[in-house]
Amino acid sequence: MNKDFQIVGIGNAMVDILARCDDAFLSDAGVEKGIMQLIDMDRAVDLYSRIGPAREVSGGSAANTIAVIAQLGGRTAYVGKVKDDQLGQIFTHDLRAIGATYETSLAPKDHEAETGRCIVLVTPDGERSMNTYLGVTEFLAPEDIDDAQMAQAEWIYLEGYRFDGPDSKAAFAKAIDACKGAGGRVSLTLSDPFCIERHRDSFRQMIIDGVDLLFCNRAELLSMYQTDDFETALAQCGTEVDILACTDSENGAHVLAAGERWHLPVAPVEIVDATGAGDAFAGAFLWGLAEGHALDICGRMGNVAAGSVIQHIGPRPEADLRALFEKGGLV
Amino acid sequence: MNKDFQIVGIGNAMVDILARCDDAFLSDAGVEKGIMQLIDMDRAVDLYSRIGPAREVSGGSAANTIAVIAQLGGRTAYVGKVKDDQLGQIFTHDLRAIGATYETSLAPKDHEAETGRCIVLVTPDGERSMNTYLGVTEFLAPEDIDDAQMAQAEWIYLEGYRFDGPDSKAAFAKAIDACKGAGGRVSLTLSDPFCIERHRDSFRQMIIDGVDLLFCNRAELLSMYQTDDFETALAQCGTEVDILACTDSENGAHVLAAGERWHLPVAPVEIVDATGAGDAFAGAFLWGLAEGHALDICGRMGNVAAGSVIQHIGPRPEADLRALFEKGGLV
Repeated sequence: MNKDFQIVGIGNAMVDILARCDDAFLSDAGVEKGIMQLIDMDRAVDLYSRIGPAREVSGGSAANTIAVIAQLGGRTAYVGKVKDDQLGQIFTHDLRAIGATYETSLAPKDHEAETGRCIVLVTPDGERSMNTYLGVTEFLAPEDIDDAQMAQAEWIYLEGYRFDGPDSKAAFAKAIDACKGAGGRVSLTLSDPFCIERHRDSFRQMIIDGVDLLFCNRAELLSMYQTDDFETALAQCGTEVDILACTDSENGAHVLAAGERWHLPVAPVEIVDATGAGDAFAGAFLWGLAEGHALDICGRMGNVAAGSVIQHIGPRPEADLRALFEKGGLV
Repeated sequence: MNKDFQIVGIGNAMVDILARCDDAFLSDAGVEKGIMQLIDMDRAVDLYSRIGPAREVSGGSAANTIAVIAQLGGRTAYVGKVKDDQLGQIFTHDLRAIGATYETSLAPKDHEAETGRCIVLVTPDGERSMNTYLGVTEFLAPEDIDDAQMAQAEWIYLEGYRFDGPDSKAAFAKAIDACKGAGGRVSLTLSDPFCIERHRDSFRQMIIDGVDLLFCNRAELLSMYQTDDFETALAQCGTEVDILACTDSENGAHVLAAGERWHLPVAPVEIVDATGAGDAFAGAFLWGLAEGHALDICGRMGNVAAGSVIQHIGPRPEADLRALFEKGGLV
């Protein structure tokens, strides 16, 4: 293939507000630990007033994935809606500065919503609890999807979180049609167990109809297939997609494809902040795949990238991933 | 004294945009290394488009100092102008969240300027090169100074950078009068050699007329007294203020007061990012002084705080400074 883009990601565009807290704070503030919860602007203002000093960094699940691909030198673009405000400028700057293409039209300055943000509370165990005000990213619509861009994608990468919002499914359907119609392939991440609760049937239909590569973690896979048995869920899902890449925290990752299966363990590391671990895994995996590496190597690349991002505060890798791949004998 | 505030700081309120770069980038972009340079919005937009991915954290020299005092549990307030925009919300949140009082009226949403920001470029040697768009902080005026608040300050702390701007000197004069009239004392930081070039005569007059405690570093002291001889400058300045606290990078700090002099060395540390080192020194020193510690102990506290802040990216301490003081036998 000789397309403009190896991977085009579509997701919820947002800036992360990262702050540390203890478990008692989460309880007092009514924040459920370890998941992504949607909040409205009033709740965002209230919660923000209660957290300690924070730092702001570009986030958004698929955007983090695309940032990894761009850092590795991949040809990649991102589609997600921000407003023409200061946080929107931060988001678009950071993506473009790392080498990704960003052409989504900005929501105008008089849009009643603002650029989305996620208050990420990091507890001493490194777990992150996310509180997302979607803002204008909720309104990404089919007209924001450029058929020509999708047709120029070897892969598109769809973020499960992006299913929240009025026109989300129509936007994804348009992207899938344009990509597949031009011979491209479709990857999806399930994002979060509670996201699956909201959209299980739609996810399932999309997986069966058109997903070639599925990313998820153990909890998401179990939720998706409504079972407590990991092996059952892996086996079932493995029959429904060409490639399944399922992360499993300190147990590493499982990759299934064409009747083959690899378990790719990880070395233990101290977790400072788990934010972005799954995103980084997907980015490195997709880059490896687009570059023609074997699936087990792609999985190992994903492990290295995830292991790097959890060792510091913030959702995007700060280390030179290519250097880490070289050190690990992966490239 | 039984005043509401131990220290009230007045300075340029801004959010830092922190990015790494190499020395070649500084040359190509026309950024002078190691100093603070003022830039306009056009230059800010152009420079921002050229730097890599960044992170945003609240900054501002005096605000960093006040944040240190608040972290240590001091009774402290900050006066500096931001706009009612997203960066302004970040700045005020972070100060209040750490325990400082912030009551300055916000510039309205229709003000033509935005909240100030500083593009801080950090080179591999840990040096920081600052590019400041003042924005609305330039317009802090006498009417933003609350006489009653200044009268309730044991100390006011004035940031030299804040001399840039049309009403700055009048605002400082008002603050000094209100503070001194109520028996309070005045401290000043010289901020930057090039800032001194712009305002040497005004600084000198203020030092002679009303500054009780002066903070500076070696380069600033030499610039202030237009000499190459450090000892001469120290001696001269020592006759003009009650207390002189002069930092000297890896050589530690010199404190002069009432004919006495202390040299307070520092242990060598790896410098990741020098941003905020002087601010942290001043904050810890002022807190120590307000708490009644001896001047040499205040200087050592300043060294500990500065040494902590330079070991990570970002201008405000992330470590528990009180715990570090306890470990060092200072409290």
